[in-house]
Amino acid sequence: MFPALDTPCLLIDEPTVTRNLKTMQDRASTLGKALRPHSKTHKMPVLARRQISLGASGIMVAKLDEAAVMLAGGIAQQSVGYPLIGPIKAIRLAKLLVEGLRPRVSVDSRPALDLLERAAAEAGCKIEAVIEVNTGLNRAGLRNPDEIAELAQRIRGSERVRYRGLTCFGGHIGYQPTEDEALTLIRDENALLDRIAAHLTRNGLAPEIISEGGTIPAHYAEYLRVATELRPGTYIFNDVVTVASRAAEWKDCAATIVTTVVGQPDPAWAVIDAGSKTLALDPAPSGGFGYIEGRPDLLIRRLTEEHGVLVDHQGRPVRLQIGERLRIVPNHVCATVNLHDRAVFVDGEEILYSSPIEGRGGIR
Amino acid sequence: MFPALDTPCLLIDEPTVTRNLKTMQDRASTLGKALRPHSKTHKMPVLARRQISLGASGIMVAKLDEAAVMLAGGIAQQSVGYPLIGPIKAIRLAKLLVEGLRPRVSVDSRPALDLLERAAAEAGCKIEAVIEVNTGLNRAGLRNPDEIAELAQRIRGSERVRYRGLTCFGGHIGYQPTEDEALTLIRDENALLDRIAAHLTRNGLAPEIISEGGTIPAHYAEYLRVATELRPGTYIFNDVVTVASRAAEWKDCAATIVTTVVGQPDPAWAVIDAGSKTLALDPAPSGGFGYIEGRPDLLIRRLTEEHGVLVDHQGRPVRLQIGERLRIVPNHVCATVNLHDRAVFVDGEEILYSSPIEGRGGIR
Repeated sequence: MFPALDTPCLLIDEPTVTRNLKTMQDRASTLGKALRPHSKTHKMPVLARRQISLGASGIMVAKLDEAAVMLAGGIAQQSVGYPLIGPIKAIRLAKLLVEGLRPRVSVDSRPALDLLERAAAEAGCKIEAVIEVNTGLNRAGLRNPDEIAELAQRIRGSERVRYRGLTCFGGHIGYQPTEDEALTLIRDENALLDRIAAHLTRNGLAPEIISEGGTIPAHYAEYLRVATELRPGTYIFNDVVTVASRAAEWKDCAATIVTTVVGQPDPAWAVIDAGSKTLALDPAPSGGFGYIEGRPDLLIRRLTEEHGVLVDHQGRPVRLQIGERLRIVPNHVCATVNLHDRAVFVDGEEILYSSPIEGRGGIR
Repeated sequence: MFPALDTPCLLIDEPTVTRNLKTMQDRASTLGKALRPHSKTHKMPVLARRQISLGASGIMVAKLDEAAVMLAGGIAQQSVGYPLIGPIKAIRLAKLLVEGLRPRVSVDSRPALDLLERAAAEAGCKIEAVIEVNTGLNRAGLRNPDEIAELAQRIRGSERVRYRGLTCFGGHIGYQPTEDEALTLIRDENALLDRIAAHLTRNGLAPEIISEGGTIPAHYAEYLRVATELRPGTYIFNDVVTVASRAAEWKDCAATIVTTVVGQPDPAWAVIDAGSKTLALDPAPSGGFGYIEGRPDLLIRRLTEEHGVLVDHQGRPVRLQIGERLRIVPNHVCATVNLHDRAVFVDGEEILYSSPIEGRGGIR
C-alpha cells in the first residue's frame, strides 16, 4: 500500500473529492440555496477555488489567519464565522479589507459590531454582517427575538456595516441515533428561525440571508425550508462521524491516514505509527479513534502521541504483521487535517501530487 | 493581559522554564542518574540545547522528523523512542547518520533490529540499541525475559548495532489517585526490571543502561532504584495532568494559552477564542479542557474546533466581560504545543521574544 510514501501520511482521494463537491453543489442548486463551504476542513486554497468554480458563492472561514490564506489564494468573498473581538483583530481585519477581502462577519454582541465599524472606517469600505442565532448548540449566538431585533436595528443604523440577515450552526443536529431525532431537531430549528424572521420582518428588518452551517444539516437540506444558504465543511472529505450520522458512506470518505504496524509485542494488541498527533483525539459514537478500512475486526482502542494501540473488537488475537500498512478514516477529519503540513492526492492506488495545507494551524 | 499580542497565543514563562530545567537536572545528578529529556514536549532546538548545556547526556525524540530538526539544531546524541519499521525509514535513518546523528534506538522486534543493521551498513557506521520493556503501559515493548534475552543476544551478534541495555516508559504510573498507588506501581516496575536484568546478566548480557521515561516517574526518581537514566519530557513546562499527579504545582506551569472572551450570549456560559485546534482534546482527571489561572470558579466544559465554552463550576452565572483575557494551563502541554507554529517567551508580564516551534508537526 503506497510503498513510495513514508508513514503516517495523509492521503486525499481525488475522484472522491470531485464527487463529494459535485453532489453537494447539485443538492444546493436544486433546492435553490446558496452554497458557501467552510474551508476549515481542508484549509487549502486550491480546493476552495474548486468549490467556487463549481458554483459556491464564497467560502466560510473560522478566523482571520484562515481568511488571509484564502485571500492570498484568490478568494475575496468570505464569511468569517467567529465574532471578532479586540483591537488587534480590528487592525488585522482593516488590513485584509485593504488587501481586497470582502467579508460577511457573524456578530452576536455590540462589541463585535463595534469592531466591524472600526475596521471598516479604518479601511474606508463597508462590511456585511449577519447575526448569529443559537438554535440549540449553546455556543455563540443569540436566541431572544427582541435582542436579535435590537442588534439588527443597530447594524441597520451603521454607516459602515450592512445588515444581511441571520446565520446559525446546527451542530447539535450532528450525530443523532435515528433520522427521526435529527428531523425533530431540524423542525425545532425551522420554527425558531421562522419566529425570529417574522419578528424582524414586523420591525422592518427582514433577513435577506438565513444561513445554516454543518454537513449533517446540509444532508437534510430539503427539510431546511427556512435556510437560504448552506455552509457545510466536512462534506468535501467526510469522516467516521459523518458516516455514523448517515450523511455519507465509507466510499465517500476521501481523506485517510496510511499507517504502518510497527510492533506486535503481545497477541492481544498491535502498535501503529499513528497517534493523537497524527489522528487527533476527537471521539466518534462508534468508539475508538478511527475506522480501519477493510478491517472491521480491528478497534483503535487508544492513542498516545505517536502510537495507536489496535485490538480485536471481540478480544481475539490480532492478526497483523509488523511492516503491514493500514488505511484509517479519521473520526473528525477537520481535526486530523489540521495536524498535517501536506496531503498526498491519489486516485485509487495511484499517487497524483502532494499539496501543502497552507491554512493549517491558522488559530488566530 | 498582554495587549500587544493577538489571541489565542502560546506563552512560555522563561523563569519558570529555567527553574524546571534546573530542578530536574539537579534531581538526576544528585541521584547519579543520566538525564535524557524528551524533546517532544517543546520541539525547539533552542530549548534542547539548554537541556544539554545544563548536563543532559542527550535528548529523546519520538520520530525521525524530530530527529532531523534537533540534529539541524546541533544535537547529535539522540534516543529515538519509536521502533523504526519499513524501507523508507531505513533510508531516512541512514541519511541522518551520514549527517552526524548518533542515535540510540529502541527496538522490540527483529524487524526493528534488521532496519538498524541496514541503515548502519548503508551509512558505514554503528548504531546503539536498547530493548524496550513493557512495564505495564501495554503499548510497545517486550515483557518475557527469555524473549528479551533472545533479542539482546541477536543485537550482541550484530556487527553494526551495539547492545546497550533496556528502556521503558512508565506511562501507566501517570495519574494515580494517591502517592501510595503510584509507589506500588513503581515497586512492581523495579521488580520486573530486576528480574529481566538478572536474567540478562546470567546470560552474559548485563544491561549497561536501564532508562525510564516520563515526568511522573521522574518525580519519583528516588524510588526508581533500577533505572540508570531518566527521560522526562513534560517537566520543562508542566500541565494540568502533571499537577493532578502531584509532580508539579501551578507555579511550575510554564506554558499557557492567552485567550479572549469573545461572547457571552447567555448568563450560563461564555465563549472564548480557544478550541480544540488551540488546546487539544486531551483529558485530565479534574475534568474540563484546561485550568484557567486565577479563576477556579470556571470550567472549560467543552471545546469545538475554534471555541471554548466556559461555565461556572457550581452552575452559577458566569462573571466575565467580552474582551476580557484569560490564561489557560493546558491539560496536556505536549499536544497543545504541537498545534502552534510559534511561542512567545515572557518573564511575568514582560514579553521577551517569539520563537518558532521548528519540530511541530514532525509526525514521521
